[in-house]
Amino acid sequence: MKTIYTDDHKLRDAKTELYGGTLVPPFECPERMDFVLERLAAVKLGPVEAPTRHGLDPVRRIHDADYLDFLATCWEEWQAAGFEGEAIAANWPARRMTGRRPRHIDGKIGYHSLASETAISGGTWEAAQASADVALTARAVIAGGERAAFALCRPPGHHATGDMFGGYCFLNNAAIAAQAFLDDGASRVAILDVDFHHGNGTQDIFYDRGDVLFLSLHGQPEDAFPYFSGYADETGAGAGEGFTVNYPMPEGTPFERWSEALDAACGRIEDYGPDALIISLGVDTFEEDPISFFKLKSDDYRRYGTRIGALGLPTLFAMEGGYAVAQVGVNTVNVLEGFEDA
Amino acid sequence: MKTIYTDDHKLRDAKTELYGGTLVPPFECPERMDFVLERLAAVKLGPVEAPTRHGLDPVRRIHDADYLDFLATCWEEWQAAGFEGEAIAANWPARRMTGRRPRHIDGKIGYHSLASETAISGGTWEAAQASADVALTARAVIAGGERAAFALCRPPGHHATGDMFGGYCFLNNAAIAAQAFLDDGASRVAILDVDFHHGNGTQDIFYDRGDVLFLSLHGQPEDAFPYFSGYADETGAGAGEGFTVNYPMPEGTPFERWSEALDAACGRIEDYGPDALIISLGVDTFEEDPISFFKLKSDDYRRYGTRIGALGLPTLFAMEGGYAVAQVGVNTVNVLEGFEDA
Repeated sequence: MKTIYTDDHKLRDAKTELYGGTLVPPFECPERMDFVLERLAAVKLGPVEAPTRHGLDPVRRIHDADYLDFLATCWEEWQAAGFEGEAIAANWPARRMTGRRPRHIDGKIGYHSLASETAISGGTWEAAQASADVALTARAVIAGGERAAFALCRPPGHHATGDMFGGYCFLNNAAIAAQAFLDDGASRVAILDVDFHHGNGTQDIFYDRGDVLFLSLHGQPEDAFPYFSGYADETGAGAGEGFTVNYPMPEGTPFERWSEALDAACGRIEDYGPDALIISLGVDTFEEDPISFFKLKSDDYRRYGTRIGALGLPTLFAMEGGYAVAQVGVNTVNVLEGFEDA
Repeated sequence: MKTIYTDDHKLRDAKTELYGGTLVPPFECPERMDFVLERLAAVKLGPVEAPTRHGLDPVRRIHDADYLDFLATCWEEWQAAGFEGEAIAANWPARRMTGRRPRHIDGKIGYHSLASETAISGGTWEAAQASADVALTARAVIAGGERAAFALCRPPGHHATGDMFGGYCFLNNAAIAAQAFLDDGASRVAILDVDFHHGNGTQDIFYDRGDVLFLSLHGQPEDAFPYFSGYADETGAGAGEGFTVNYPMPEGTPFERWSEALDAACGRIEDYGPDALIISLGVDTFEEDPISFFKLKSDDYRRYGTRIGALGLPTLFAMEGGYAVAQVGVNTVNVLEGFEDA
């Protein structure tokens, strides 16, 4: 399996994350990629190639123009306002407030944020574009005839909505790739999100559409970020009714229980019969992840990779979360190896 | 004029405020009160008396039970979760997300926050209750026959909604006092908010009611906190249609322009004919305020106090913001002196 990767992700190197009322070094750090690359080389999974530039047109199919303008100018405007830290939202359109977009950057960042743990700093916008290019290039590899490809995206994407960033995500790489499949002739695409956290952004983007089936296995929203999305009764709306499927699970969920949800999700995918499958591949389901609460072990990743492979679909893996940094490589690549074993 | 005050406000002594992407000492600090007390004594405005305890019943008339439970337990739950900083929201029900209240404190605090600059720390709940008692005691002074009273409240209240804190506010003292006037036989109460920031909480609480006229003079929301509330076209709903009146004004607004809005607001109050008037008295309209952008000078406060006094209504002044700390005393007491000159 080919991996698409670029060092440009290192441009995303924020120094602060709002966590537990303090500013800490971000859990989502550049070093995560080093462990994945090292493991890919160790098991000789396949070639690692650089992405090609796709420009913003395929990104604009998913994200609002105002939002992209915000991402491109946020850091400059924040600094011009005289603020001394990285750009972090401190306000937002709270319940019953107007949805109007403010002019001042301190309000505009709140308008475009879904959470405030994630800071915007210099290079974030460039890295986010490169990450979308990684996903789009991996998609092109599959369109070119390969069964599967691994988009080693960073920053991740699944929390980003059409107009909001947060949860370490700025551009929704999986959604951008799904739309590219459709624009290239696919009738139906399925996105299976196995990251510990609910893929609220991907859900939101496709919530009223029937041409993308979105399924997510995640920590139940009562107890887990993003807290306000991912309940089982969120099933889509309008033409999208029935095409969002959530599998929220409680603290301590072991692989045995998790894999039952995966089986159910795979059954839904088979019924749907998509032309392509995208896996939002987060490995923060790992038992040692510092900010999650499932109990998967390293061998479990290989087993579920094989289950996904058995679907027999053209499959794009897009990297999402995973913060037990030293184990991110082994767990991620275990999924890919398991897939190839199918 | 009597002032109601208690040192219990000092229990609210948070160490951190999220500002410009950094954690700084809060602009809303205990020392603000010292300057007001000093000035009250210097001009011999009148006696300073301690509040009496009113309990939570009058508070429950304005705030939801779930929210009060959250305020009472937040700090304990936050510490029990192992977080090391003060309690600050890092997520919230963003646009198009569910409005369900999470169980984990990291989600629950986001549910009950309207902004994340304000941290909850030990003593916050106790100080907020004492501040509501200050407002309720001042109201009782007026009910007892005095023309006016000054509730030297801290923490302030006007940003707090029925179920959300933020902007340094936890319990909406002005709204609690207004409801107490109504419950004590008043037919109509007017609340005039002269703080630099829009009184979004007070507006939200009474938005669909006609028995409270809410008027606010403030920095326009395109450019000023709380950013998503305070537009001129927010005029109330249902039975409250026409009973919310906003006067948003741009950066650099001088007293000449500001006092025109005050005259217009006073005209609306006269037409309404309330049984009592509550002034949400913030003095962050001052030209040297560090986080605001109007250009009032110290003498202007006296002039507008006289304009308010000319309304001839029973008047409760409830302290809100003002962060040019050394001038907070002079400017606040100038309003009260001007009122007595009317």
